[in-house]
Amino acid sequence: MATAVSPLAPKSVPQLPAIEGVRLATAAAGIRYAGRADVMLALFEPGTAVAGVFTRSKCPSAPVEWCRCHLKGGRARALVVNSGNANAFTGKNGRAATKLTADVTAMAVACKAAEVFLASTGVIGEPLDARKFAGVMETLAAGVKDEHWPEAARAIMTTDTFPKLATATAKLGKASVTINGFAKGAGMIAPDMGTMLAFVFTDAPVAAPVLQALLRESVADTFNAVTIDGDTSTSDTLLAFATGTAARRGAPRIGKASDPRLRAFRAAFREVLASLAEQVARDGEGARKLVEIVVEGAVSKPSARRIALSIANSPLVKTAIAGEDANWGRVVMAVGKAGEPADRDRLSIWFGGIRVAHRGERDHGYDETAVSAVMKKPEITLKVALGLGRGRDRVLTCDLTKEYVAINGDYRS
Amino acid sequence: MATAVSPLAPKSVPQLPAIEGVRLATAAAGIRYAGRADVMLALFEPGTAVAGVFTRSKCPSAPVEWCRCHLKGGRARALVVNSGNANAFTGKNGRAATKLTADVTAMAVACKAAEVFLASTGVIGEPLDARKFAGVMETLAAGVKDEHWPEAARAIMTTDTFPKLATATAKLGKASVTINGFAKGAGMIAPDMGTMLAFVFTDAPVAAPVLQALLRESVADTFNAVTIDGDTSTSDTLLAFATGTAARRGAPRIGKASDPRLRAFRAAFREVLASLAEQVARDGEGARKLVEIVVEGAVSKPSARRIALSIANSPLVKTAIAGEDANWGRVVMAVGKAGEPADRDRLSIWFGGIRVAHRGERDHGYDETAVSAVMKKPEITLKVALGLGRGRDRVLTCDLTKEYVAINGDYRS
Repeated sequence: MATAVSPLAPKSVPQLPAIEGVRLATAAAGIRYAGRADVMLALFEPGTAVAGVFTRSKCPSAPVEWCRCHLKGGRARALVVNSGNANAFTGKNGRAATKLTADVTAMAVACKAAEVFLASTGVIGEPLDARKFAGVMETLAAGVKDEHWPEAARAIMTTDTFPKLATATAKLGKASVTINGFAKGAGMIAPDMGTMLAFVFTDAPVAAPVLQALLRESVADTFNAVTIDGDTSTSDTLLAFATGTAARRGAPRIGKASDPRLRAFRAAFREVLASLAEQVARDGEGARKLVEIVVEGAVSKPSARRIALSIANSPLVKTAIAGEDANWGRVVMAVGKAGEPADRDRLSIWFGGIRVAHRGERDHGYDETAVSAVMKKPEITLKVALGLGRGRDRVLTCDLTKEYVAINGDYRS
Repeated sequence: MATAVSPLAPKSVPQLPAIEGVRLATAAAGIRYAGRADVMLALFEPGTAVAGVFTRSKCPSAPVEWCRCHLKGGRARALVVNSGNANAFTGKNGRAATKLTADVTAMAVACKAAEVFLASTGVIGEPLDARKFAGVMETLAAGVKDEHWPEAARAIMTTDTFPKLATATAKLGKASVTINGFAKGAGMIAPDMGTMLAFVFTDAPVAAPVLQALLRESVADTFNAVTIDGDTSTSDTLLAFATGTAARRGAPRIGKASDPRLRAFRAAFREVLASLAEQVARDGEGARKLVEIVVEGAVSKPSARRIALSIANSPLVKTAIAGEDANWGRVVMAVGKAGEPADRDRLSIWFGGIRVAHRGERDHGYDETAVSAVMKKPEITLKVALGLGRGRDRVLTCDLTKEYVAINGDYRS
């Protein structure tokens, strides 16, 4: 496991305020790691709404199937997350393990199993011994506190080099509401460690369908616009919980996603997701550079997205950036292979605001020294203008270093 | 540039016989490299048929556009290939350079410019000074010999660690015909060096449309079934030339691709392409393992291909293989992200014939020691059975090593 903190880690960890109706606890269940917390319990007040989005993998993990199935109820009382074992590709035993975990939790906190949400991250294909949850569940349920955010964020880490937390507040009606979130990254991780997990919590009284709509619209340009290596975990999970407790302080109950009173909340919600997603990119395996890929002038936004992802997932572009090489030829290659409309003779490319290629040729005016200085920075923006239309999009990624190969190529011991 | 020969290189270089109507020469034009041949001329007898397939990139190089345009004539008298500069993303200057090169060649060998075919490999985005061809063209044209196959294969190398040659013979009617070929790889290569180029030559009297049909059908399971890093060059080119001179020895002229007399020739032609494609995979940048990915039981062959490519292009699968880790969890991940029909609970996975996962779970019977021995071998077959239908396909790839990152991440000096 990686030990040194990513050089791209945020300089400070945000302090998360309490959210009325959310209490958290962590414990060391010994699932895989010794001497650290590896399970996290969040308890919610009755009436908490839940929404979720999940991996598009055709081979999802057992907890993903569990959550998908129970999301339709729209209500949550508990969230249990473990690190160390993903409970993915574990067949019927995997499904039995999710059922047992939910039953044990439901009994300890006096709710229905269908109101318990689950996520697991860690080794794929190894049976998850759910009895380990039983051993700590009473302790967890008894120990929940409203300030345990940093502990919860740490308990779900696998090869993450720093905990990922974000918070924002917004006015909803005349009340101030809070949105807290934490996540682990980054895409598929070190030996067998799969999964991006993120959890967002708010006291805003938004109904489950509204929360779901907010999640879907916010995820498109945040978590879905981050790629580390183009690989998709079997377990990616993003869940949002709204306790609604701010209604006690006068916040209006929101039943429609189109409600204009949501404006500030919507922006703050998106901000929390964007912060967590960026932190995931900043903790990409072996990452030494945070890279923002901006594509404009495409025929549409989806076309711009596909071109941006083609660039962001190109091993040749990513290794060039690791080598601090403003190698725009490889960017052309990645544009060309995206399969989207592109005209070489209208293509322009910028690294960090310096145009290096213009209308299908090297930009003869550019200053190599200035570009070299840009490429040495830890954060680099790469912009491509296609000159075809008004489609614009952006994605975040990181460079591809020898450390990535070392982290992922070391023998599974 | 890489210097050590790939450990996966064939143990011996095949000796290519002469093909009547094909003569070759090489020269050092000083395009980029010092002290080595970097341009190759092949001259063909009048009446030589030509066919070609090219990169699917939307931003192809100037020589690719040149060849596509002139292929419709179906006749070739000369092929000029240079290494050191890809003449890609060079705008109007690039088109002018192809025109000048073809004109100079046409003058030297007394043919039409439209009968001259061109390919370039090397740096992208740098202007190609076509006058360098003019300086060596008379020498090249005067020096063509029918035995210069190894020299030609070496002249087109960029970061290839060994020349790639293949030959086969077949009966066409009662005459024996020969197919020779050489190639360079491997996908997109070291700093700025793009391009897979391959050229195939035969004395068989097959008409241009027949040659084109043979090329299209053979490329699907040979060159198009090889992937190094999923990146697509702007310049990938595969040209085939048929002099037809075997007709003098009694070979029948073939005007239709469906002619049953083509059976042996078709197989030999495919064999040459398959050999060259495999050699390209064996010379993938930094490659230490040749990996065959077999997918069966998919709903169709195209579905099997997409799943095989998803596995073959997954950085996590490739780094695991570099680490000699039979990490089938990552294979599941790659199957899941392919977007094709797949059912986790029917999935089985083999490494080198040893089943490690069966029907959605770890195969409890497998011998870890035996699997470790398989993973240490330089050639590994990874098989996935989906259990859904009869679709089957295979692709070749290589592992992803720190050397790949080093080769591609070193600063463009």
